Amino acid sequence: MAAPVPGGFFGARFSLYPLTDGFVPVILRAIEGLASSGLEVQTDDVSTFLGGDRDAVFGALAESFTAAARTGVHVVMPVLLSHGCPGEEVCEMPDDQPHPPGAAKRKLARAGVRVSAQWSLYPLGDPAYMTRIEEAIARGKSDRVHVAGRHFVSHLAGDLADVLTSVRGSFDAACERVGHVTAHLVISANSPSTAGHGG
Amino acid sequence: MAAPVPGGFFGARFSLYPLTDGFVPVILRAIEGLASSGLEVQTDDVSTFLGGDRDAVFGALAESFTAAARTGVHVVMPVLLSHGCPGEEVCEMPDDQPHPPGAAKRKLARAGVRVSAQWSLYPLGDPAYMTRIEEAIARGKSDRVHVAGRHFVSHLAGDLADVLTSVRGSFDAACERVGHVTAHLVISANSPSTAGHGG
Repeated sequence: MAAPVPGGFFGARFSLYPLTDGFVPVILRAIEGLASSGLEVQTDDVSTFLGGDRDAVFGALAESFTAAARTGVHVVMPVLLSHGCPGEEVCEMPDDQPHPPGAAKRKLARAGVRVSAQWSLYPLGDPAYMTRIEEAIARGKSDRVHVAGRHFVSHLAGDLADVLTSVRGSFDAACERVGHVTAHLVISANSPSTAGHGG
Repeated sequence: MAAPVPGGFFGARFSLYPLTDGFVPVILRAIEGLASSGLEVQTDDVSTFLGGDRDAVFGALAESFTAAARTGVHVVMPVLLSHGCPGEEVCEMPDDQPHPPGAAKRKLARAGVRVSAQWSLYPLGDPAYMTRIEEAIARGKSDRVHVAGRHFVSHLAGDLADVLTSVRGSFDAACERVGHVTAHLVISANSPSTAGHGG
């Protein structure tokens, strides 16, 4: 039997898309802190994987997006969160039981970046997955970041820190109950389509 | 009891991100065909929902991305595919049974657009979901678009039509077995990071 995974294997995969001709320097400056984050970082031509401590991963996502958004250009960041199975094909979970991640030890600071976001939560292998999803939507509403339900996603808006904190809260709550959980999130700021009402 | 859904409710949610200062006209030109596609189209500030015939949805995704990629700018398209539940919170499936979508009636034509892509498949509520995922990865390999397994995703590359056709094949195969299936895909073309080896 494999050794238990403390808190469960956790990681994120993200990409930063600044919609400008000068996207390369915006991206490089936004992610320059990753090297000293203590996280496992693997970059390929489509996205970057971050593995390690949950607080550090959410901190790195917030810092990278904030740096890119502060340039003022329209910037978008798709994020995949995953808890449980590290691999692609082979699920290396030591068992099918939940590995509760515990409470966040670090709070994300508000940095004044307004975002518009859409996200979906996928508790896998659980026949009661819709109950977990309903709980996540209720949390978005009580956290006051839920704007609307849309086909397949919840639409959130607010300060980046509030949106990420709510998404993490729902994600971690699902991990308390389910061994393998993923979530997909798209975060947008400075969009000309949302001038005045969100990201 | 609600009426059965022929083929199962199906739709896609996508965004187009051309990484250029002139992103607005590139996007508008890329999606101008949607109005006459016969699909249900709902656009918000983060993404666009397409609902309706599977052949038409995949055709619209391919045409939109091709038009944007042909400008030569680095362009990225995140896509969420969903079969089964139309809503956010309330799953309006008439039952928990699969609603097989049947075979594709239209083949996507190769348009010479090389892409690099990452995707994940989520058969929901199914304890055997890892088996479905393994089948999808095997299909990517036999379709010769699978480049590598990465944390949480499969990395694909090839002609846009071949990549989308393989993803659809795996998605539809999962829908034959599972009532509610989603998938997330990020497609990239003209990236300076992949010059010479993919998208």
